[in-house]
Amino acid sequence: MPNIKLEVEFDGTRYFGWQFQPNRITVQGTLEQALAKLYGVPVRAFGAGRTDTGVSALAYPANYAAPRELALPAIVAALNQRLPDDIRVHAAEVVPDSFHARYDARSKVYRYTLVRGHSPVLARHAWELVLPLDLARMRRAAGFFIGEHDFALFCRITTGAEPVKVKRVAIRERRSTLTGARLLQIEIEGNRFLYKMVRRMVGALVDVGRGKFGAAELACAVRHGPRVQFSTAPACGLVLVSVKY
Amino acid sequence: MPNIKLEVEFDGTRYFGWQFQPNRITVQGTLEQALAKLYGVPVRAFGAGRTDTGVSALAYPANYAAPRELALPAIVAALNQRLPDDIRVHAAEVVPDSFHARYDARSKVYRYTLVRGHSPVLARHAWELVLPLDLARMRRAAGFFIGEHDFALFCRITTGAEPVKVKRVAIRERRSTLTGARLLQIEIEGNRFLYKMVRRMVGALVDVGRGKFGAAELACAVRHGPRVQFSTAPACGLVLVSVKY
Repeated sequence: MPNIKLEVEFDGTRYFGWQFQPNRITVQGTLEQALAKLYGVPVRAFGAGRTDTGVSALAYPANYAAPRELALPAIVAALNQRLPDDIRVHAAEVVPDSFHARYDARSKVYRYTLVRGHSPVLARHAWELVLPLDLARMRRAAGFFIGEHDFALFCRITTGAEPVKVKRVAIRERRSTLTGARLLQIEIEGNRFLYKMVRRMVGALVDVGRGKFGAAELACAVRHGPRVQFSTAPACGLVLVSVKY
Repeated sequence: MPNIKLEVEFDGTRYFGWQFQPNRITVQGTLEQALAKLYGVPVRAFGAGRTDTGVSALAYPANYAAPRELALPAIVAALNQRLPDDIRVHAAEVVPDSFHARYDARSKVYRYTLVRGHSPVLARHAWELVLPLDLARMRRAAGFFIGEHDFALFCRITTGAEPVKVKRVAIRERRSTLTGARLLQIEIEGNRFLYKMVRRMVGALVDVGRGKFGAAELACAVRHGPRVQFSTAPACGLVLVSVKY
């Protein structure tokens, strides 16, 4: 039984995230249905981790033990035939038996897109934000996230004590290739992410950028948990770009 | 009664184009409903011309005779409150009484976006095309469209004999700001456009780019009407960028 790793792009708009949930449409559930149709037996797909409801992914890795051998291009074509249009398998490769898409992940890269002003054409995958933002303040504040912190405090959740390390937060202005609208993109790389963590980070950065809270309040929130009510960015603007092994 | 010109962005995915049709959802019908709610009386909005079902627009101009005077920012805010999320008024200005969004239009700029390969995240506003394309061939072929031609022949429609002049066809490769995917964008400016004209032009350019037909067949089709069955690009990839007066 070869261990197959897939690279999957999905538009998360209508899914309750990656992870299987009974009676709800999820990407894992949908992919496992396609795998079952292809192989004629139930197949379990192991993804790189949960994604929140509505979040999309460009190259989501998932692996499964193939019940029988099929040529890799045939797997890609057959799965895409059986998947809805908002999920596409871009690649399949044979990986060592020991490979596990979640446990072996070393870091993940998320990208959050904001559009300055209203844009119906971009709204499906961007947070429409009319307020002016002070980019320099946001960039300074972003530095406070870097490093290993107890992000469970920041995220106001209780969780196992595995350390979370944020490696990089990059903020850049761009023009949308589709509409020419001004975008702000926040790219965040970390070893792992907690529930709503990226969206809470982006919400806090936006609160600092619009002057609602100061960078000091953000710095304090990263160390001790938020004392103020930072915003949480909506799921639509978030995309999992890649997972590194 | 001041003559007000609006600049409207809309995601055309769920609309049967701009122009009012009984029992069908259109952008004009939806905008006129919002205007009627705002002013308390029926208001007719004159748009810059029809758009095909599913086509989007970034700055669609429409004008109307305002039943009473309202401050321009108040008009923008009040209309946006009354419009669905996939239509947004970006600006309102007072224009001379003689101004008509359709009759005064001097040229229109359309942009067509293709994504190379499958991309669920981009598919709402791009044509997913897996086949390799010869860009140099496409650029040479694009030159045959430039100038004044009887595009009714090319579009296989019968129409009044107003001349259609294509001023510019620009093809460029870009990376999507949202996903990093390879895009091909075809921007076309002309004094006016016939039914499905841009989509037929893009379809023909793609047919030449993939080697299905030669540039000579396209050149002939522009002059005498197509003798071969060129493709028609799907509506989703098409956006009306701007209208010049």
